[in-house]
Amino acid sequence: MNNFDTELKERTAYVEKIVYDYCPKEEGLQKIIIEAMNYSLKAGGKRLRPMLVLETLRLFGGDEKEAYPFMAAMEMIHTYSLVHDDLPAMDNDMYRRGKKTTHAVYGEDMGILAGDGLLNMAYETMSMAILKSKYPQRAALAMNILAYKAGIYGMIGGQTVDVINENKEKDIDTINFIHKLKTAALIEGAMMVGAILAGVDEQAVETVEEIATNVGIAFQIQDDILDVTGTLEELGKPVLSDEKNNKTTYVTLKGIDESKRLVEDYSEKAVNLLESLGGDSEFLKNLIIKLINRVK
Amino acid sequence: MNNFDTELKERTAYVEKIVYDYCPKEEGLQKIIIEAMNYSLKAGGKRLRPMLVLETLRLFGGDEKEAYPFMAAMEMIHTYSLVHDDLPAMDNDMYRRGKKTTHAVYGEDMGILAGDGLLNMAYETMSMAILKSKYPQRAALAMNILAYKAGIYGMIGGQTVDVINENKEKDIDTINFIHKLKTAALIEGAMMVGAILAGVDEQAVETVEEIATNVGIAFQIQDDILDVTGTLEELGKPVLSDEKNNKTTYVTLKGIDESKRLVEDYSEKAVNLLESLGGDSEFLKNLIIKLINRVK
Repeated sequence: MNNFDTELKERTAYVEKIVYDYCPKEEGLQKIIIEAMNYSLKAGGKRLRPMLVLETLRLFGGDEKEAYPFMAAMEMIHTYSLVHDDLPAMDNDMYRRGKKTTHAVYGEDMGILAGDGLLNMAYETMSMAILKSKYPQRAALAMNILAYKAGIYGMIGGQTVDVINENKEKDIDTINFIHKLKTAALIEGAMMVGAILAGVDEQAVETVEEIATNVGIAFQIQDDILDVTGTLEELGKPVLSDEKNNKTTYVTLKGIDESKRLVEDYSEKAVNLLESLGGDSEFLKNLIIKLINRVK
Repeated sequence: MNNFDTELKERTAYVEKIVYDYCPKEEGLQKIIIEAMNYSLKAGGKRLRPMLVLETLRLFGGDEKEAYPFMAAMEMIHTYSLVHDDLPAMDNDMYRRGKKTTHAVYGEDMGILAGDGLLNMAYETMSMAILKSKYPQRAALAMNILAYKAGIYGMIGGQTVDVINENKEKDIDTINFIHKLKTAALIEGAMMVGAILAGVDEQAVETVEEIATNVGIAFQIQDDILDVTGTLEELGKPVLSDEKNNKTTYVTLKGIDESKRLVEDYSEKAVNLLESLGGDSEFLKNLIIKLINRVK
């Protein structure tokens, strides 16, 4: 393990601990739903989005404590989207990251309610953060941006277009729309929240958004590539699921080599923009490169 | 139609117009999800919760414009809960208010996503309201209270206990828990939001919460009564659905007469508390009485 991998592992554990601090207590007559929510939240993952909130805030020298509730909220929103995506009426996945999905363990009704509970709790957490923040205006703006990126003009919009085009031939514009909204939007939200909480100006927030867009799209194309080249062991989910589902992806439209080249392009653009911001961006830069070139 | 009924009709139309002003435009590749959300929002109903936001704010002489986005958000949260409740994995209802339910028209996947979209948009709307409010602190507190009442310690908690006890014998404590959380919590949220946005003190907010609890429980017992005594025409949904689903309710446990007496008790308590607040509470009082003694 090189230095960056060791550092990443430590920082991931740190981020995870913060997220866990916001997990609700499993008690009351409604205990089962809280268990289902925590099961979903604690099922692992890269913790990429809360890490991007924190690392972007750090890049601009913000107050770390301001980020904590937003990091938890970010992961709750990401997790709810996975829980609902896995439902029988959606992707119908029984496994994710090598573990049973939430509805597979708790039933379909609890899967729906656990997702709702996580989404609602994200906003409960952020609204409490506004009340407690040293900079309530920043916190309110951060929440508003995240709500926009998570909603019908962001992630939910992307999920919609993904679902209605399932098993259909798609053109590259539709695929780009899905990648931009379904995947990039939350990454944009995460980095913008970090920047806004640190109190940077609009110009810097825009640059951060552009970095995140490039990271998000590269990340999703890499996902399409990994679906073809990965193994069950590496990914913790069935491979070739895209092919089996007759899904058009970057790889089926452009081929592996061109897709890999595009990942390089987006990646380079993100890194260049990041360096243009100044500050100590070493960790963020390595994180972006690692994410985009990941093998699982 | 007596004077109050005429007044109620006019004020309902006024409330509905405000809610409609916040409906998203049906455009973009993701248009279908926006149509599904608006279909759900525009499917009628009493508009009780946004009306309670507005009327409670009026009682305390608040600035009406402060209430508008919260009224819309309130109805979005109520509507998302109906859309998800109607799903096949939940109550599996194909009709509500005499109209096809959202998933019946748009499919189960869009039903899930439309509910998610409505819940998220509620918070997007409220977070924007905080940014635009003359009293951002009040608006942030109002949103935090509503998030609490809509979440696992409120409505979602109540739905959970309702779902896991379906087709089971329930004791009166469990039924009270469900009524308090599944139904009363959002009514509490609505009235508390109105009071908070008007800038009243904590004591008054607590009294308002107590009024709303009594209204909510009476409303729900009346719902159980109507399930036995109503007709399809009056209710716009199949009658005796509780009995068919082998559901324990106030009526099956306590009988119709005792249930009716309890509705009277809760109703009287709500009205007495309301009058203790002073101010022109005539319309709110009539609204509460009307709601509780409704025949549909």
